[in-house]
Amino acid sequence: MSPLTPPLSQRLDGLRSSAIRDLLKLTARADIISLAGGLPDAELMPRDRIARAADAALTDRSRLQYTESPGWGPLREVLAARESTRLARPVPIDEVFVTHGSQQALSLLAEVLLDPGALVVVEDPAYVGALQVFRAAGARIEAVPLDADGMRLDVLRELLARGARPAVVHTVSNFHNPGGVTLLPERRRELAELAETYGFWIIEDDPYGELWFDRPSPEPVATYSPNVIRLSSSSKILAPALRVGWMVAPTRVCRAVELLKQGADLCGSALTQQIVTDLLADAEWLAAHVDSVRTAYGSRAKALVDAVRARFGDAVVSTDAAGGMFVWVDFADGTDTDALLPAALDAGVAYVPGSAFAVATDYSHAMRLCFTTSDAETLGRAIDRLAGAHAAGRG
Amino acid sequence: MSPLTPPLSQRLDGLRSSAIRDLLKLTARADIISLAGGLPDAELMPRDRIARAADAALTDRSRLQYTESPGWGPLREVLAARESTRLARPVPIDEVFVTHGSQQALSLLAEVLLDPGALVVVEDPAYVGALQVFRAAGARIEAVPLDADGMRLDVLRELLARGARPAVVHTVSNFHNPGGVTLLPERRRELAELAETYGFWIIEDDPYGELWFDRPSPEPVATYSPNVIRLSSSSKILAPALRVGWMVAPTRVCRAVELLKQGADLCGSALTQQIVTDLLADAEWLAAHVDSVRTAYGSRAKALVDAVRARFGDAVVSTDAAGGMFVWVDFADGTDTDALLPAALDAGVAYVPGSAFAVATDYSHAMRLCFTTSDAETLGRAIDRLAGAHAAGRG
Repeated sequence: MSPLTPPLSQRLDGLRSSAIRDLLKLTARADIISLAGGLPDAELMPRDRIARAADAALTDRSRLQYTESPGWGPLREVLAARESTRLARPVPIDEVFVTHGSQQALSLLAEVLLDPGALVVVEDPAYVGALQVFRAAGARIEAVPLDADGMRLDVLRELLARGARPAVVHTVSNFHNPGGVTLLPERRRELAELAETYGFWIIEDDPYGELWFDRPSPEPVATYSPNVIRLSSSSKILAPALRVGWMVAPTRVCRAVELLKQGADLCGSALTQQIVTDLLADAEWLAAHVDSVRTAYGSRAKALVDAVRARFGDAVVSTDAAGGMFVWVDFADGTDTDALLPAALDAGVAYVPGSAFAVATDYSHAMRLCFTTSDAETLGRAIDRLAGAHAAGRG
Repeated sequence: MSPLTPPLSQRLDGLRSSAIRDLLKLTARADIISLAGGLPDAELMPRDRIARAADAALTDRSRLQYTESPGWGPLREVLAARESTRLARPVPIDEVFVTHGSQQALSLLAEVLLDPGALVVVEDPAYVGALQVFRAAGARIEAVPLDADGMRLDVLRELLARGARPAVVHTVSNFHNPGGVTLLPERRRELAELAETYGFWIIEDDPYGELWFDRPSPEPVATYSPNVIRLSSSSKILAPALRVGWMVAPTRVCRAVELLKQGADLCGSALTQQIVTDLLADAEWLAAHVDSVRTAYGSRAKALVDAVRARFGDAVVSTDAAGGMFVWVDFADGTDTDALLPAALDAGVAYVPGSAFAVATDYSHAMRLCFTTSDAETLGRAIDRLAGAHAAGRG
């Protein structure tokens, strides 16, 4: 008898790698200036400070042991203190849970908050990492479009009025990925009120909030209601390799996430968690460091937006890039950004077409540009190349 | 209208923290010698070597960036080379996948291999971390008892003959947690044959294989069939805080796990993965280091087993502790180890009662003892205390 090869689970049917990941593999060519990535700039990461913190952490052998599933105690204390300031209320340590990047918070929350078939409202264009998780959890998805002031609450209201009862509404409240926009303060309050009226959770996904360029980002949505679960991360302000994200949520949510974290991977790394503790607790150093990242990204963002407006004029509408890592460009002249991509790659520039982030809205005339890893001059050259490809296409 | 508080998912019903975790909280008192834990000894972890590796890793800023979901390339290469030696065949890098400890491999594999309601065969007593994951995935569980030579294949054969068609059989092949025993070489071959006859996956969970005391552990089950997915980890030989485990599996399994890892937490830490790469690649240092851990654990294991046999004589049957971290003690005199526990704690010694690991077999007369974190003299004192409590109970 020939050996039987066992099958894989049917759960995998329909799961596929994100289009963006596949695109990034194509655009790694040395002659391409990639605005398609979504990475923070490694050159701005505080290598020396991290090395000092690693050294200090390793003087204590207990940092090499397993740690608690909700995170190393001193890290949760530092985070509770920071979030108390941010949320203008005392946040107890029981409401702070450390995850392996905020992606892990999303995936554990999908299990904790969603019954199969539950409704999840996402923004359109959507943060793809969240969308994947909600889909994998078997959720039904409704999409609410963004405008220049963030999620369109008029559309959400209409959805609720028509009888939709979401379990979760997901929002990237500050400097949206990919949309670049920030949720208006009035809308934050209104969204929180809707959550309490209709009894849904808000996941406020906020990895970029500290990366503001001109003025601090508005009060978190979590300021307005206990129905808000707030996520953030050290990846964009310190370094992704530390894999330290965190969640501020009601105690019962944290307890449920703890049960799942035990099965998912037992616990995080006491070593990288102590490094993050050390850096976050060093307030003066941290302020100066984050400031230097803001200054660098701010000037790159400005250079990119200026170049886009100079080269494309009325043919596009672009976000202002007031913070974060991305500029969203909408072609008013009917350009199809999927169709333009091969010519752009030939001309030596890469971007992510809007269609990669679209849920229910047609974003085939839009694109996401990332400004974090190129200097102003390179960004200008990238937009020259893009304009060349665009002009040739319209020839 | 009063604000509505949203509910949590019904999926959480029935999920609870493991009895062992709750017990460990009780036994953290300073006057108790705990043989209840399951941790490697932090004093034996190579702190200085890790500090050097961290320093070296941090000379390259790219180590601070996100890394690939299947793991940092050079780590997968080192692991592929090591596993090629262990499995006596060339293991390509595509068959190596790095996880956040081997617990994450278990939880991702449960999704990749199991449809809801699928049958999983576990050993009895069971590794609780695996049992939790399979239960959370909605699997039906059948348990096959251990004897002194590992999983009883006569019982598994009988199960298969009665028509049971498992999707997965899980085995801790070397120095079982909690059972202490090692699967006999003939049984490994036979188990692999059954997997090919009936078309099931074997998950060979092998965190302890390198911690042998007198002679190397037998050839892995994975030597005998491509239906075997082999898990191991750096936690027991280097340090748990690095959170580096790995899996050797057919390419299609690795690809499916990669899709899920993207949603679960994007990627591991390039920093701790480079530290592990550095240490595993330093063959001479590693051999000496692992040897020193073996020597220390081996003498502790012997001291514990000698003390148990000296104090309890014919009242118990104990494993020999030929490797790993645990001794399993079976009371032949009818002692109920759950009932004995309060008196043992009063006498200043803690253990985990067999019932905590039991699936379908009555292990109420057994206990798991961990010898890793106490010296020989302390282990002797612990067994004196246990014998005192036992004698008083039988008064």
